[in-house]
Amino acid sequence: MSLLVVGSIAFDSIKTPYGSVESALGGSATYFSLAASLLTDVRLMGVVGEDFPDEHLRMFEAHNIDTRGLEVTAGKTFRWTGAYEGDMNEAETLAVELNVFADFDPRIPDEYVDSRFVFLANGSPSVQRTVLEQVASAELVVCDTMNYWIETANAELRSLLSEVDGIVLNDQEARMLTGRDVLVEAGSDIMDMGPEFVVIKKGEHGAMLCARDVCVPVPGYPTRLVKDPTGAGDSFAGGMMGAIARDEDLSLRGLKRALAYGTVTASMTVEGFGTSVLEGARREGLEGRLEEFREMLAL
Amino acid sequence: MSLLVVGSIAFDSIKTPYGSVESALGGSATYFSLAASLLTDVRLMGVVGEDFPDEHLRMFEAHNIDTRGLEVTAGKTFRWTGAYEGDMNEAETLAVELNVFADFDPRIPDEYVDSRFVFLANGSPSVQRTVLEQVASAELVVCDTMNYWIETANAELRSLLSEVDGIVLNDQEARMLTGRDVLVEAGSDIMDMGPEFVVIKKGEHGAMLCARDVCVPVPGYPTRLVKDPTGAGDSFAGGMMGAIARDEDLSLRGLKRALAYGTVTASMTVEGFGTSVLEGARREGLEGRLEEFREMLAL
Repeated sequence: MSLLVVGSIAFDSIKTPYGSVESALGGSATYFSLAASLLTDVRLMGVVGEDFPDEHLRMFEAHNIDTRGLEVTAGKTFRWTGAYEGDMNEAETLAVELNVFADFDPRIPDEYVDSRFVFLANGSPSVQRTVLEQVASAELVVCDTMNYWIETANAELRSLLSEVDGIVLNDQEARMLTGRDVLVEAGSDIMDMGPEFVVIKKGEHGAMLCARDVCVPVPGYPTRLVKDPTGAGDSFAGGMMGAIARDEDLSLRGLKRALAYGTVTASMTVEGFGTSVLEGARREGLEGRLEEFREMLAL
Repeated sequence: MSLLVVGSIAFDSIKTPYGSVESALGGSATYFSLAASLLTDVRLMGVVGEDFPDEHLRMFEAHNIDTRGLEVTAGKTFRWTGAYEGDMNEAETLAVELNVFADFDPRIPDEYVDSRFVFLANGSPSVQRTVLEQVASAELVVCDTMNYWIETANAELRSLLSEVDGIVLNDQEARMLTGRDVLVEAGSDIMDMGPEFVVIKKGEHGAMLCARDVCVPVPGYPTRLVKDPTGAGDSFAGGMMGAIARDEDLSLRGLKRALAYGTVTASMTVEGFGTSVLEGARREGLEGRLEEFREMLAL
């Protein structure tokens, strides 16, 4: 219980072969918290501008997402415009307006200081470190990152990795961070940088968990309905951390099961545009798909 | 029991970041039969030239591979030269000399006519059909194919698909054959062309089984030692068909387990150059890795 996420909240404009949306609610902390809220209570921390509508705040609260850490500041909310083509494995970013997110300097409110599980969504490693220092009593801190930080803030990222318990990143990022082509080797090398466990996301192919000297694959849930991949990675992290916070099982099997919640949650997200599926999802639907997935993998 | 494979036997010259070999025993039927021989007796059918050394024949026989269908004809054995770089997911073909394989016209010997399980390794759909017509009493016929035949012999391939029970092909080939980006959709479309089941190989990411209205993922076994990917796909097919011929379980669970044998066998092949690992492998080693894999996937 008491799962805190710190990350971005944005307005996304997205185009895919299946349609488009304009200025829809998005951002890493949004997808993460909606996904995790299917399994546990979530504390959300981020920054938005004065243009952020009350209806989104009410939607978060309706999902038992605590918004006391949501800072509203003068200016405009972060905006992202992107498009997907072909197999939709990668977004093409068409425009980014960081707006109020550019100066995000998270100050954890008193109500959040006792958070036991913390997810540092993708952001500058120095901002992620600022949060880490404010949640010193957390039991488990997991971070995300991206190629941009691996290239431009490598030393800060490696320093952060020496202090977090886990990291979630995608296959290209893992290869870039380690210079290794084989993912099992990349995972091992990242564990040597500090984290107790490393989760390498592989898009439609699922993810790999490296922990306790082994690397274990968890395939993607085979959905046939991929309408919009936006938020898949953050939904994966939300489902995974939601399961960890709910079950408090950090054994290899517990972590593996958490990854399965992640991959199943991500498969739900991509079946509709933006946050539409997650906003309408219920715990029973997630549990049903998880059970179906568990049976699929039984040999 | 009585598993027949018809395909190529070759001399391969291979270069990877981990080393190289010259004129090593290779070819689809070679990898397939060595892989399948870990689980069942195999009948091999192919053509070689007068330059094919007796030691290879003796090696096949030592693995309980029946070579009575191996035709030795005037001329030289098929030769392939290839190289791998980077993540080694795809071979760069540097040279092909079809030699005696160019005129391969398989005539099933009397001893093989009662084969119950048949694998038509990658080859021209018209040659594959020739074999199909000679094994009319087989219970299960599965074929492989490749992008070249999808492009140049599409009608013949579709005609073949309407008569086989199963097909094994890779993700790019499945997308090319159907024009679908999402693999679950591609698998469904290929089932509509005739086969009872479709196996889509995804390299290091394992494979997907489509059968009986569902698509089920089987991840790759996470090896850290990828020295030479040559023969991985044919070893996969050999492990899969070996398990099918041994267990005779065509239920969804039986097929899924056969795919697991395939992915585990392929993971062994890539850990050494050419056929070196398969030649030295024992059934106990394969069963041990399969059991480890089964535990990995249990949620």
